[in-house]
Amino acid sequence: MYSNDMHELGTRPSCIRELFEYGNKRAAECGRENVYDYSRGNPSVPAPALVGETLRELTTRDSLSVHGYTSAPGDPNVRKAIADDLTGRAGMNIDASDLFITCGAAPALVSTMMAVAVPGGEVIAIAPYFPEYGVFIKPSGMKLVVVTADTESFQINFEKLGAAINPNTQALIVNSPNNPSGVVLSRETLTKLAGILSAKSAEYGHPIYIISDEPYRELVYDGLEVPFIPGIYPNTIICYSYSKSLSLPGDRIGYVCIPKCCADHDDLVPALAGSARTLGHVCAPSIMQKTVEKCVKLRPDIKTYDENRTDLYNALTDIGFTAVKPMGAFYLLMKAPDGDSLAFSEAAKKYNLLIVPCDDFGCPGWMRLCTAVSHDMILRSIPAFAKLYADYAAK
Amino acid sequence: MYSNDMHELGTRPSCIRELFEYGNKRAAECGRENVYDYSRGNPSVPAPALVGETLRELTTRDSLSVHGYTSAPGDPNVRKAIADDLTGRAGMNIDASDLFITCGAAPALVSTMMAVAVPGGEVIAIAPYFPEYGVFIKPSGMKLVVVTADTESFQINFEKLGAAINPNTQALIVNSPNNPSGVVLSRETLTKLAGILSAKSAEYGHPIYIISDEPYRELVYDGLEVPFIPGIYPNTIICYSYSKSLSLPGDRIGYVCIPKCCADHDDLVPALAGSARTLGHVCAPSIMQKTVEKCVKLRPDIKTYDENRTDLYNALTDIGFTAVKPMGAFYLLMKAPDGDSLAFSEAAKKYNLLIVPCDDFGCPGWMRLCTAVSHDMILRSIPAFAKLYADYAAK
Repeated sequence: MYSNDMHELGTRPSCIRELFEYGNKRAAECGRENVYDYSRGNPSVPAPALVGETLRELTTRDSLSVHGYTSAPGDPNVRKAIADDLTGRAGMNIDASDLFITCGAAPALVSTMMAVAVPGGEVIAIAPYFPEYGVFIKPSGMKLVVVTADTESFQINFEKLGAAINPNTQALIVNSPNNPSGVVLSRETLTKLAGILSAKSAEYGHPIYIISDEPYRELVYDGLEVPFIPGIYPNTIICYSYSKSLSLPGDRIGYVCIPKCCADHDDLVPALAGSARTLGHVCAPSIMQKTVEKCVKLRPDIKTYDENRTDLYNALTDIGFTAVKPMGAFYLLMKAPDGDSLAFSEAAKKYNLLIVPCDDFGCPGWMRLCTAVSHDMILRSIPAFAKLYADYAAK
Repeated sequence: MYSNDMHELGTRPSCIRELFEYGNKRAAECGRENVYDYSRGNPSVPAPALVGETLRELTTRDSLSVHGYTSAPGDPNVRKAIADDLTGRAGMNIDASDLFITCGAAPALVSTMMAVAVPGGEVIAIAPYFPEYGVFIKPSGMKLVVVTADTESFQINFEKLGAAINPNTQALIVNSPNNPSGVVLSRETLTKLAGILSAKSAEYGHPIYIISDEPYRELVYDGLEVPFIPGIYPNTIICYSYSKSLSLPGDRIGYVCIPKCCADHDDLVPALAGSARTLGHVCAPSIMQKTVEKCVKLRPDIKTYDENRTDLYNALTDIGFTAVKPMGAFYLLMKAPDGDSLAFSEAAKKYNLLIVPCDDFGCPGWMRLCTAVSHDMILRSIPAFAKLYADYAAK
């Protein structure tokens, strides 16, 4: 006797997991250096030296305080440090009490959706979107509504969005810089989005929240602006993770920020505390909270990721592939030449290229390549891409 | 627009939290050394030196591996180390694949209840029980059924238990050593429990699981046996935390163990992975996993806790209070002299004694005193207890 729903979720085939296992098998057969794994989402840049220095320093402090429970929303000093850093660049005041520190962005998203949930509520995701959103929404009891991708600009197809919004719409998830497209939503796009959501909120008599899933916020190229969304649309809740900015994905540290300007702020804050509690959240890892406190002003090593995205993009388009030049994050979208992404992922295995079809991201026909890999692997993989392209050209 | 349920949970008054805030207020007024705070549940013994040594050593290793994602159930080497340690003392083989590493016992319990949930299912808690069970059960959709406490032996009232079990019973939570009673369930009690659950499982045609919440497993006095429950009742799922044994409560590291002998093992393992995924579990904090790997064989400093429980128990009973001598954990139960525990907690504040009434633990009339405090605070608090007793005697 067990939960059929949970069993289904735990056994559902995952393309990324299968590629991972295939990669291990091939590495054992032909050497790790001959497998070109573009399937993962791990940062390829080490954590900044200050992370290690801080951890070492923390081991010399009072153990009971370093390793003890913090309050559920997080250590007050840590929240203050994060709030000050945000205030410095958000163009608005963020207070420590607006922050709830979580075990990364995933539980931040789950508890946020639970906090804004009403019976019959719906949450909109704009494709391409992170497939786990469909899992993360479950505890809220709400329904995920997907707006199909605008594969020209990868901004937002406002016509389709307009058709998806209805009185049950409680929230819309924005993920910019985007996984998997690498696209950053422009201020223009976000302003238009804010106008639509404001009008619909007024029409329906309740706020439609933006849930901004922004773990890649600082990972942006060419000095591009990543607008602070609450400054454009006040009813925005931010879900953040230090996974990418500090290269700490396994250590599970992030936060939810509900700015004061957000409708029902004073009720959403305790609702979030309630939902986190339901998930078994006691506090985010104490030692990582205190590490973030010292490292909160560090920004990721853009140079390395930039070199990767530029060289991979140039190589692929030189070969003849259609690709989207990433504006941020560490993914690159390329088109399956014949539009069949699942078949393309299979065909790529012949050359030990592991690339993820974006069907589960709501973007069939496209492939996701993670650029957070070694630059050397990119260079070594180019001939394999060329052969793959030639196979398709010869069809 | 927000979730009323979550808001209610996030704003529900908490006796422990209120005592905590009252304690801070009094400390500001009359000095921390004059406030006798028995309300918390934090270990009072520092983490073993090996924890700090391991953390320092980890900062010298490859950052991407130390801080990177592990697989969702945990790093294979860490699971192997935990499994080997368990096998060595469980009297049965525990395999790495039987373990799912979590962010502490709280999400372990939430995901376990979700994994065994069926529509209309019920979970039994035996009072006194940890009040958060009532919150942790929510995502499973099941109902918590409380068997009232046997305040003579604090073992299990089997008559009441028998009346509570019905065909909807999916699981029973056992917490031994117990928070708040400090009682360890004897092998005799557990064997009787196993007999009843086996008979009822056969009658209803489905297993009734024991969910063994055992963060205090190693915290036991006088060399008392804490039986490994799967050896007595195979359909047992263990939820464990290193919070107490390694004094790492804030760092959120524990596990679920589903031994091979457990009914539906091969389906429960993926069901647990599914439920953890739903909660936004990606992996337990990677650096803490690797710390546990090196510290897995360490046991808590019983001597310090033992001295506390002995001296506090003797002092309270010498004064005239009725108390339960703790067999394990770091709590001590004492009786409110007139049976009104809420009023007693209020009356105790007069002498700056912060003690938790056990009404929310399903044990009205009793008080919980945490013995994980400084020994010096215990000694200084005795006169306050004596005055409090005298007030009640004079009534």
